[in-house]
Amino acid sequence: MIPKDARVSLDVEEIPKRWYNLAADVPGLEPPLNPVTGEPAKPEDFSQIFCKEIVRQEGSTRRFIDIPEEVRDNLIQLNRPSYLQRAYRLERALKTPAKIYFKREDGSPLGSHKGNTALAQAYYNAEDGIHTLTTETGAGQWGTALAMVSNMFDIDTTVFMVRGSYNQKPMRKTLMHMYGAKVYSSPSEYTEFGRRILKEHPDTSGSLGIAISEACELAVKDESTCYALGSVLNHVMLHQTVIGLEAQAQMEKAEIVPDVMIACAGGGSNFAGFTFPEIHRKIQGRSECDIVAVEPKAAPSLTQGEFRYDFGDTAGMTPLLMMYTLGHDFIPKGIHAGGLRYHGMSPLVSAAYEQGLCRAVSYDQPETFEAGVLFAKHEGIVPAPESNHAIKAAIDEALRCRATGEEKTIVFCLSGHGLVDLYGYDQYMEGTLPSSA
Amino acid sequence: MIPKDARVSLDVEEIPKRWYNLAADVPGLEPPLNPVTGEPAKPEDFSQIFCKEIVRQEGSTRRFIDIPEEVRDNLIQLNRPSYLQRAYRLERALKTPAKIYFKREDGSPLGSHKGNTALAQAYYNAEDGIHTLTTETGAGQWGTALAMVSNMFDIDTTVFMVRGSYNQKPMRKTLMHMYGAKVYSSPSEYTEFGRRILKEHPDTSGSLGIAISEACELAVKDESTCYALGSVLNHVMLHQTVIGLEAQAQMEKAEIVPDVMIACAGGGSNFAGFTFPEIHRKIQGRSECDIVAVEPKAAPSLTQGEFRYDFGDTAGMTPLLMMYTLGHDFIPKGIHAGGLRYHGMSPLVSAAYEQGLCRAVSYDQPETFEAGVLFAKHEGIVPAPESNHAIKAAIDEALRCRATGEEKTIVFCLSGHGLVDLYGYDQYMEGTLPSSA
Repeated sequence: MIPKDARVSLDVEEIPKRWYNLAADVPGLEPPLNPVTGEPAKPEDFSQIFCKEIVRQEGSTRRFIDIPEEVRDNLIQLNRPSYLQRAYRLERALKTPAKIYFKREDGSPLGSHKGNTALAQAYYNAEDGIHTLTTETGAGQWGTALAMVSNMFDIDTTVFMVRGSYNQKPMRKTLMHMYGAKVYSSPSEYTEFGRRILKEHPDTSGSLGIAISEACELAVKDESTCYALGSVLNHVMLHQTVIGLEAQAQMEKAEIVPDVMIACAGGGSNFAGFTFPEIHRKIQGRSECDIVAVEPKAAPSLTQGEFRYDFGDTAGMTPLLMMYTLGHDFIPKGIHAGGLRYHGMSPLVSAAYEQGLCRAVSYDQPETFEAGVLFAKHEGIVPAPESNHAIKAAIDEALRCRATGEEKTIVFCLSGHGLVDLYGYDQYMEGTLPSSA
Repeated sequence: MIPKDARVSLDVEEIPKRWYNLAADVPGLEPPLNPVTGEPAKPEDFSQIFCKEIVRQEGSTRRFIDIPEEVRDNLIQLNRPSYLQRAYRLERALKTPAKIYFKREDGSPLGSHKGNTALAQAYYNAEDGIHTLTTETGAGQWGTALAMVSNMFDIDTTVFMVRGSYNQKPMRKTLMHMYGAKVYSSPSEYTEFGRRILKEHPDTSGSLGIAISEACELAVKDESTCYALGSVLNHVMLHQTVIGLEAQAQMEKAEIVPDVMIACAGGGSNFAGFTFPEIHRKIQGRSECDIVAVEPKAAPSLTQGEFRYDFGDTAGMTPLLMMYTLGHDFIPKGIHAGGLRYHGMSPLVSAAYEQGLCRAVSYDQPETFEAGVLFAKHEGIVPAPESNHAIKAAIDEALRCRATGEEKTIVFCLSGHGLVDLYGYDQYMEGTLPSSA
């Protein structure tokens, strides 16, 4: 009597065997440029900080790339395959004729999708003889994910956590410590760059740009140390496609044909992971699905940015990336959806958007929390503030269906849960959550 | 290549169709007594505060009780069936020849097993025409669970939250508010009993006993209001057996024969839910499994209490229950495992213990956190402080196997995750976590 689409699961054997690489198919993808020469970046421009296979994948245009068996085995520990679930109660509450499904990246013990690429990166670095991975983290999700999976391959992790968050979010620091990572408040005394900044600006609350510079400095200096990035670049998008590939298998299994697919977009990894396999189908002429990226009004790179070359980081040290950007010196307002506070957008997502393969909408913080609370009340899951953006767009679509009577099938990605970051909900319930527009 | 016991899952259709009732099989079960008359309590003694079917189940000695279809459907939203997973990495870290499996109640969106009975109770109350459920909550897990599932049946929830927690754990209050519950700091101005206490002790930080009294007062006064309890009583143990029944099906599927089964025990609902189906097999002579209840040194009712009639609450208002107890006026030291801070033990668990069908051990707080951090580091999941007790016992068993060379199969229940309560881990990592012995 339980409807077969109430929750669509896959066996562990059905974890995808290869990632999908949109770089093989999307037209108009421009290469990154070396910022000094202005020439297309060469593998050497990346190999100072990334291990060999990551550099290869970053530049690859092969359509499918095999997922190593050891990575697949370990995806189980991130609770893959994740469920595709139907939001019956939310549909009822909205009185919509639309069907709403959601892909559950909240089920990872890390609480979000970030582990999918962290795991692959840790594996390749271990294979390449790397002993230490360095990274930056803002709110802490990415640093937590990398710290956790590095353990699986006996790799040490050094995380530079933006000083403001380091002081305000001690629990994220605790999590990283539990997973065995070294965590430095950035700027730190541990790097030359950090010491310089501390001397010049002893009271700074830090920034992602500074933290990236510190992490990269260690990777450049030490042969057995590499850097790991949680979003934006092509190899990260690639690894995240396990989400969308699973979703495709699940939709096929339960005979679900999506009219709309929705995901939030900051640097773009959740959106890419969830939608690229469907965008592939669109390019092949096998799908007319409406694909929607949802941004915060605080960082509306697709909806209000320009498509041009810009630095990936704030300090202006990375190769130049062809992407939608608000300018690398744009500092987004503080919002609870810290994972969406990015000035640019993944070059692959940007290319797909430029080609009209997807569209974008943006929302203000309070309306996304309103949507998240409605979802939590009816579906029981407390969403991450980032995920609330996708939920808001899905609800709006469902309400349009109520107005028009269309029985659309809406599928969105629940990128993570919000249980470690409940403060935003507290503000929302107390009526003190600020606008971010 | 993925071993079939790496993670054993069940389909939604395999959610158990009936609960197992140990009251049918355990010898020496004594009835609750009316505290005024000293006579065995009658259904009327419970029906002032509980709905009809709950009263019936509380006194039932039927071996199996059907799970209503609507309850089974909704167990999906608690992510049932939950996984049974093998702790390969932990085994490797311990260099043990033992196999370690764990049942994952952390996968519920509520973060613990509490929803299993909350759901059944909300359903029966809705069937009985009840509009409002009242309850008490200490740390907040039970109140959160009841608030969440009550939504599924359009029941309002009123939660009396112990004032100390209300002030110290605002996020739990936020969660309950999101789920639509009314939450009062207890003692409150909302009840006669609360007003009286406030007048006499305006600065009290409250207690579970006071909160229970306030919740029951509302249930007694209003025909359409009932009370819901999260542990101790027979019907709660009954509803939790979905955990153990699923585990039985999973062990059969993956050909796992448990030598030891371990769960933490406060009021007893997690322990009962996980182990009663195996205890049933022991009574039938089909199992010789060593079954272990793990208590905190702060509330060692089985290991240091007496088996006698005592009140279930602190205030001395409930029927007298035949159980292991430290005395109803025993106030356990403050520990992070708030769910284990109870002076007594479920009468069913107590009877099984008295009959030698299970044994008990107790641990001090720091050693349980040490075990939890080791587990998190290797398995990636941050356990609830309560679950750390089971983990500690499982690790000790595995280390004994290392010493003896025995290849035992150890199966424990991970009752929940600790992501909403990371403060204890912070203390542990900082070296400031106090002993509770």
